[in-house]
Amino acid sequence: MPTRIAIIGGDAAGMSAASRARRQDPTSEITVFEQAGVASYGACGMPYHLDGRIPDPTTLIVRTPAEFAQANIDLQLHSRVVEINTASQYVDVQSTCEKSARPTKHHFDKLLIATGAEAVQPRIAGCDRQNVFLFKTFADMLRIEKYLQKSIVRNVTIVGAGYLGIELAEVLTLRGLQTRLLDLAGTVMSKSLDHDISQLVLQELNSHGVLSILGESLLALNGPSNLVREVVTSHGQWETDLVVIVMGVRPASDLAKRADLALDKFGAIQVNSRQETTQANIWAAGDCTSAMHRISGTPTWIPLGPQANKQGRIAGANMVGQSLEFPGILGTAFVKAFDLHIGRTGLNEAEASAAGLEFTSKTITASDRAPYYPGGGPTTIRLIAEKSTGKLIGGQVIGRAGVPGRTNVIATAMHSHMTVSDLSELDLGYAPPFAPVWDPLIVAANQF
Amino acid sequence: MPTRIAIIGGDAAGMSAASRARRQDPTSEITVFEQAGVASYGACGMPYHLDGRIPDPTTLIVRTPAEFAQANIDLQLHSRVVEINTASQYVDVQSTCEKSARPTKHHFDKLLIATGAEAVQPRIAGCDRQNVFLFKTFADMLRIEKYLQKSIVRNVTIVGAGYLGIELAEVLTLRGLQTRLLDLAGTVMSKSLDHDISQLVLQELNSHGVLSILGESLLALNGPSNLVREVVTSHGQWETDLVVIVMGVRPASDLAKRADLALDKFGAIQVNSRQETTQANIWAAGDCTSAMHRISGTPTWIPLGPQANKQGRIAGANMVGQSLEFPGILGTAFVKAFDLHIGRTGLNEAEASAAGLEFTSKTITASDRAPYYPGGGPTTIRLIAEKSTGKLIGGQVIGRAGVPGRTNVIATAMHSHMTVSDLSELDLGYAPPFAPVWDPLIVAANQF
Repeated sequence: MPTRIAIIGGDAAGMSAASRARRQDPTSEITVFEQAGVASYGACGMPYHLDGRIPDPTTLIVRTPAEFAQANIDLQLHSRVVEINTASQYVDVQSTCEKSARPTKHHFDKLLIATGAEAVQPRIAGCDRQNVFLFKTFADMLRIEKYLQKSIVRNVTIVGAGYLGIELAEVLTLRGLQTRLLDLAGTVMSKSLDHDISQLVLQELNSHGVLSILGESLLALNGPSNLVREVVTSHGQWETDLVVIVMGVRPASDLAKRADLALDKFGAIQVNSRQETTQANIWAAGDCTSAMHRISGTPTWIPLGPQANKQGRIAGANMVGQSLEFPGILGTAFVKAFDLHIGRTGLNEAEASAAGLEFTSKTITASDRAPYYPGGGPTTIRLIAEKSTGKLIGGQVIGRAGVPGRTNVIATAMHSHMTVSDLSELDLGYAPPFAPVWDPLIVAANQF
Repeated sequence: MPTRIAIIGGDAAGMSAASRARRQDPTSEITVFEQAGVASYGACGMPYHLDGRIPDPTTLIVRTPAEFAQANIDLQLHSRVVEINTASQYVDVQSTCEKSARPTKHHFDKLLIATGAEAVQPRIAGCDRQNVFLFKTFADMLRIEKYLQKSIVRNVTIVGAGYLGIELAEVLTLRGLQTRLLDLAGTVMSKSLDHDISQLVLQELNSHGVLSILGESLLALNGPSNLVREVVTSHGQWETDLVVIVMGVRPASDLAKRADLALDKFGAIQVNSRQETTQANIWAAGDCTSAMHRISGTPTWIPLGPQANKQGRIAGANMVGQSLEFPGILGTAFVKAFDLHIGRTGLNEAEASAAGLEFTSKTITASDRAPYYPGGGPTTIRLIAEKSTGKLIGGQVIGRAGVPGRTNVIATAMHSHMTVSDLSELDLGYAPPFAPVWDPLIVAANQF
C-alpha cells in the first residue's frame, strides 16, 4: 500500500512540499487540503492587482489544481481541516462550500501542517462593516477590487505601515486615491528598519502624497449604517471611504495546538531543522513555524515567502525518507515604495540589542552608479557589525537602483560569517551604468 | 626631512595610492608624474561621451590637480618618467609638452609604478591614417569625438569585440552610425564568456543593427591618401569612414623592465601581495601588475578598475609603513550591450580547463522578477563548480535586470569558498518587482 501523505495548506510551503515529495517518491498518495478556493498563488503580488499593474489576477496562480493533478498531486480546494487526530493519524476535513456537510475522515501516514499565518485584527467595533477589509488572501484582494469598482472611493485608510501597508499605499495612490497610512509606531516599517533609515521611506511616501498618521492608535471606525465613514485615533479623526487592515500576521497554529503539538513563544508550531514537530509523523513548514536565525542563533518568527518555499521543499523531501535540514534565516526582505527600493537583512539595531549583541553601525550615502553616468541616484547603506569581532550582523540598503543586489551581497556575506573587513575585500564588479568603481558596499565596509 | 614618495601614473592605482598615503602620513612629500594632460578620470565612462550620454567629458574627471594640491599631493601633468634609477633612487622626468627640454631628475625614497596598460595595435599598414583611432586615453576619446563632429561618418569599423568594443558598438549605433564589429575570435567577449553565453550578447548586438564580422583577421586598411576607406579581412572587405582599434591592452611595463625589475609571464611587473616589486623601495599597482586569482591560485593578469584602485590603496598604505595585503581577484566584471546586461566572475569553462580543474557547469534561464510582474525578462545564469567538491568556481549572468547584483552574489559566495549547495541555502530577498520567490541563483544552484 502506498504511503499516504496529507498536507494542510496549499500555498508556498504546502505546495513546495507536495511537489518535492512527488519528485522524490512517485508512488506515495499526496493529498493537499486548502480551505480557500484558490491555492499556489503569489500572495506578494496581490497589491499590484489593485492599480492594474497585474490586470489579470489569475496570473498570480503559479499552478492550477489541474496541473497538480497531472503531477499526481490531489489538491482539494474549499477543504478545511478542522481537526487532527494524532493517535489514529487522520484529519477531519470540512467543506467550506457546503458548511452543513459533515466532516470526512482522511487517514494519513505522514502529515505536513502548512497553515501559514493569519491576519491580526484590531479589537474595536466597526471592523465588520462592508467597507473594512483585511488584505491577506486572494479572496480579500478580489473583494477590495470589486468594492473599488462599484463604489465611490476617494479616501482610503490603511491600518498598518509594514511591507504590505507601504505597497498598498503605493498602488492605491497610483490608482488616484487619497491614501492615509496609520500606524501605532512612530514611523513606517518600524520592525524592519532602524528609525532614521525608515524616515527615508516615509519621505518617499509623503512626497507622493501619502498622508502618514504615525504614533497613533486606532480607537474607532464610525459610520451611519453598515459603512465606516470616519476613522478615530488617539490624536484625531478623518473621513474615509475604505479601510484596509494590514496590522500584521500571526502563526495559524490553532489546529496544531488543539492536537497537542508544542508551540513556541511566538505561538508558532515548534519544529527542528528537519521541520519535524513534537509529534511523530507530523511535519510543519512555512509561516506557521519559526526558524533559526543565523545571526542571533535563536528561533525567530519572520513570515516570508522564500523560506516557506524552502522549508516546504525540505519537509517534502524528509516525509519521503530524506534527511535534509533547513539552514536558518537572515530575514532578508525587499520592498518597493514608489521609486524607492528598500532591502534589509540580518539584524537591525533594535534586534541586535535584543539579541544581546554589542555592535557598531556605520552608514554611508553614495551614488548607485558612476556619478557621471545618467539616471543615477543616492544609495544609503547601513552596515551593522559585532563590536568585538567585526562580524557582519545586519544591513539596510535604500536607493533607486541596485538595492536588491547589494542587500543580497550582505546576506551572502553573513551566510559565511564574513567580517566587515572581509566585505571590503570583495571583488565586486564595476561598469559605469551599474556601479561606481568603489561600490557603495565597499565604501560602507571601509568605514569600520 | 620628509619621506619623498614618487608615483608614476596618475590614474586609478596611482591616485588611490597618493590619497591613501597622504591620509596615513600628513608629512611625506608626494609627487605624481602623469604623462597625459589629464589624470584621475573614469576611463570606463569614456564610451558614453560618444553618444552624448555624458555630454561634458570633464565630468569624467574625479579630482582635478587643484583638488589634489589642496590635499598636498603634487600631481604633475604632461610629465613622462623616461627612466628609473633604482641604485641612486631617482627618476628622469621628461615634459611631454616641450619635447626638446631635457629630462629632470627627481629623487625618491619610495616609488610606486602605476603605469597601467597600453593599447595593442595591429601590425598592418594604414594604422597611422587620420581616421584610425585607438580608444585608450582621454585624449583618444576627444580626438574621436572631434573627428565625428567635423567629418562625414556613416560607417564605423570597430576592431576588437571585448568589453570596450561592445560598448563602442552600442554608443556609435545609438549615434546613428552603421557599426561593424570585427574580431579574430569566432564570437564576442571570447575571453570572458563561454561561447554559448556570448551568443546571447551577439544576438543583442545584431538585433540593434550591429554587423558582426567574427573569426576573421584584419589584413589591411586601404585608402586613397591619408584616410582609410576600406577594411580588408581574411574573408572580405567593406567600406568604412572610421576605424576604432580596441584589440586589447598589455601591461605598460617597459620602464620597469629597463630598470631591471622582474616581470612575470604576462609581461606585468612582478609583485607580492603587498604590491612590492623585486626592488627595495619600489612598489607597483594596477594594470601594470598581475594579481593572485582567488580560484585558480595563480597570478593572473586581468586589467580592471576596482582592483587597480584597491591595489593602489594598499600600496599607498604600505609605502608609509603599513603592511596590508591585496586579497586577490575573481575577475568580476559587468558590461552593458544595449538593453542586455552581462556579468561574469571567477573562471569560465575555458579558464577552468586551463587551470586544470575538473568542473560541472549548469545553466538555467528564469524570469528576473515574479513572472506576473510587468517589465520582467529572462535571466540566464551559468554556474561552474569543481566536480569533486562542488565548490563554486565561476558564474556568468545575462539578462535585462538584476544582473550586477546576482553576479556579485556569486563573487561573494566564491570569496568564502561556498559550494553550490551552500549557494542554494542562501536567504536571498524576495519581492515581485525584484525577484521571483525562488531567485534564479537558487534555481541554478539547485541544478547540481
